[in-house]
Amino acid sequence: MNKFDHKHLLSMDPLSVEDITLILDTAESFKAISTREIKKVPTLRGKSVINFFYEPSTRTRTSFDVAAKRLSADTFSLSASTSSMVKGETLIDTARNLQAMKPDVIVLRHSSSGAPHMLAREVDASVINAGDGINEHPTQALLDLFTIREKKGRIEGLNIAIIGDIAHSRVARSDIKGLLKMGADVTVSGPPTMMPVEMASMGVHVVHQTAEAIRDKDVVMLLRIQLEREGPVWAGFPSVREYATFFGLNRTLMEQAKKDVVLMHPGPMNRGVEITSEVADSPCSVILDQVTNGVAVRMAILYLLIGGAKSDKVD
Amino acid sequence: MNKFDHKHLLSMDPLSVEDITLILDTAESFKAISTREIKKVPTLRGKSVINFFYEPSTRTRTSFDVAAKRLSADTFSLSASTSSMVKGETLIDTARNLQAMKPDVIVLRHSSSGAPHMLAREVDASVINAGDGINEHPTQALLDLFTIREKKGRIEGLNIAIIGDIAHSRVARSDIKGLLKMGADVTVSGPPTMMPVEMASMGVHVVHQTAEAIRDKDVVMLLRIQLEREGPVWAGFPSVREYATFFGLNRTLMEQAKKDVVLMHPGPMNRGVEITSEVADSPCSVILDQVTNGVAVRMAILYLLIGGAKSDKVD
Amino acid sequence: MNKFDHKHLLSMDPLSVEDITLILDTAESFKAISTREIKKVPTLRGKSVINFFYEPSTRTRTSFDVAAKRLSADTFSLSASTSSMVKGETLIDTARNLQAMKPDVIVLRHSSSGAPHMLAREVDASVINAGDGINEHPTQALLDLFTIREKKGRIEGLNIAIIGDIAHSRVARSDIKGLLKMGADVTVSGPPTMMPVEMASMGVHVVHQTAEAIRDKDVVMLLRIQLEREGPVWAGFPSVREYATFFGLNRTLMEQAKKDVVLMHPGPMNRGVEITSEVADSPCSVILDQVTNGVAVRMAILYLLIGGAKSDKVD
Repeated sequence: MNKFDHKHLLSMDPLSVEDITLILDTAESFKAISTREIKKVPTLRGKSVINFFYEPSTRTRTSFDVAAKRLSADTFSLSASTSSMVKGETLIDTARNLQAMKPDVIVLRHSSSGAPHMLAREVDASVINAGDGINEHPTQALLDLFTIREKKGRIEGLNIAIIGDIAHSRVARSDIKGLLKMGADVTVSGPPTMMPVEMASMGVHVVHQTAEAIRDKDVVMLLRIQLEREGPVWAGFPSVREYATFFGLNRTLMEQAKKDVVLMHPGPMNRGVEITSEVADSPCSVILDQVTNGVAVRMAILYLLIGGAKSDKVD
Repeated sequence: MNKFDHKHLLSMDPLSVEDITLILDTAESFKAISTREIKKVPTLRGKSVINFFYEPSTRTRTSFDVAAKRLSADTFSLSASTSSMVKGETLIDTARNLQAMKPDVIVLRHSSSGAPHMLAREVDASVINAGDGINEHPTQALLDLFTIREKKGRIEGLNIAIIGDIAHSRVARSDIKGLLKMGADVTVSGPPTMMPVEMASMGVHVVHQTAEAIRDKDVVMLLRIQLEREGPVWAGFPSVREYATFFGLNRTLMEQAKKDVVLMHPGPMNRGVEITSEVADSPCSVILDQVTNGVAVRMAILYLLIGGAKSDKVD
Repeated sequence: MNKFDHKHLLSMDPLSVEDITLILDTAESFKAISTREIKKVPTLRGKSVINFFYEPSTRTRTSFDVAAKRLSADTFSLSASTSSMVKGETLIDTARNLQAMKPDVIVLRHSSSGAPHMLAREVDASVINAGDGINEHPTQALLDLFTIREKKGRIEGLNIAIIGDIAHSRVARSDIKGLLKMGADVTVSGPPTMMPVEMASMGVHVVHQTAEAIRDKDVVMLLRIQLEREGPVWAGFPSVREYATFFGLNRTLMEQAKKDVVLMHPGPMNRGVEITSEVADSPCSVILDQVTNGVAVRMAILYLLIGGAKSDKVD
């Protein structure tokens, strides 16, 4: 039960309830490190972690970098613009070349769904999916689960709403899988054009009014409207103002929520679009706790993937 | 007197003569580390320093990185182009997110004056201003003070000229504040269009001829003409050639300076514009000493902000 | 004989057979480190290595970074786009400024032939040429020599073909020098427009048919056709398809090669241009071994340049 039997973290699918619980418990013991005077333990000394980000990112990339260095691993950072990809090399060749330098972990963010799975077939290193296209973002889901458990004491039996562009959100996809596994009741909401058809068959409730979505929920998770992307995402509704008016979360709506509702957002926020500043900065918001917990959860994942094989102990 | 009671380093304003002296003395003891066989002490092991640079920079960014690593801190590098700022996140939200990862120091360079002050109000980490718009660049001023004291044995009573685009220079602004505090006599010179009105009220002499500016000075500090910027900076004079002819420092002018004059420039230099190569590379130039001292001064500042709370000792 | 008497590694020219043998022997002892549980030795603790890359690079930049960190050196990364070069500073001024921060090694990749030599004249640090224009790429040649010796047991007396754009390849230039020094027999092949005139006078055989080039060879080294460059490189032949048809290596051609031929490529590969995927991924290919060996060879070079002065021992 204390053994983590996965080489990669590509998706929430293969994780059992026991696996998820182990990750969250391990993260809990790691969380204290970041508040110490000396924020560093020698757990992964001499291990190499490559952060390979094809899309711009502050929090996820930095979060992995912080997590790895606080465990004393060496980190290497590659971005598409500084890599041989600009010379036309394929992802697989780049991956094999990185593998040849014998890293222990490759963290990949890529705009194509499935890229980390392809990578995992090619390399000996452990691969962590840090977001692939519109497919999955499992470390985000795990830090969300951690935050919910931390704030509510449990996940099972909670009523949770996810609001936004469900169809194009890798965060939503991973969160839904994780929440359902852990026994939560999940409702999704957003413009009909942004709602994937498979929701009902997954056992998820679908509503189209934000007011209805947040009613009686223990947790409300907002998604980011991806203003920097073009194409299908934007076919979903006429304008940002339209979205804010009909689906954005504001104080009036929040007054209809439960008194002890917990409000989450994976960031970066578009203030004034999916959420007003007033709500984002209100006491029910745990958005910055999510970021803090992200470091702890990623420390746990790195440890369980490459440091935990021979021992149950964290330190 | 040996206690440094500041959380942030945003401006030269709040620093007392004792504070500045403490920083320079501490830097002196750190300077030797960079010449040792093993250029590293464990002083800040387990501390996290984020270098957040919105503008391109070699020497300041690398200087902070070198300083932090020689003290064994972990460093994290963010630039505007790889960060979530490209997704439209505000500086404050980015700052809060970084804070949530529990860094000890955030070093910020930003094109907007006041950005580090705003950051400091939002985060628990110590904030160091590495240059904000046309406002201040305090670590540059401190390394300049260090270099003057090193070369001249003192700062008080020296006659110092600062030549160039005074109005748009954060270096000039911080240097003037620091020099006046330490008791130097300061003269500024440059095109009238590049001269701020408040100089006289600050107790600074204003002249408009370079020849007059350097006469009888112990130290001559040149500023960089910022060719890469547009707009108001360039309204100051008709062309680069014009500037070089009327305000650039050359050998003929230098022959009128004191024999033991010390020549400084914050870099990067525009050879042939504000300074001829002959003068830049002459024996009176201490331009590269400034860079060497920059590492020592930044080590001192990092140490005093986050490592010096409990002890007066450097090592 | 066990002493490495060079301050810089700029070219294969000054290296003696004994120097090269020492580098390869040292690399052999370092290679094991990358396969250990803890991939790190304290050999270069407290040393500073600056990686200064003016051209995009995955494998060479990361390889140096991995090599330096596995020896416990601190690394600093600069690229042209984030450096003061964008402010118009010259390479020499940038170099002097970096030197003023007291690094032990500067690794430079630059689009201008001779840039590392110029740098070496300006700085006290050891300079390693990581590729300069169309001139040299000595660490690539050394890892190629290492790989040949590893696979064939020796270099002397081997028959080796190099195929591609010989004239514009810094890899070819360094490889030819190294192979001739070590006593190999070298044949080059490629379009006549891509063949430099001095080949015959260097004692290198020139052929123009790929089939003829690979016949009876112990090792076949392909070069990368640099699709991302323009100008003279592309004057060499009409189209990529043309090149692939007349000079690309495919299975039919490989059937005429020796049974135990070893196939090399410095990467990144253009699959379907200079090599078919079938050949690139066939058992004779040691392309990924080259990458693995690159880390070991660069560890050896770093160690011999800055860590080996006082002792013959690696660990």
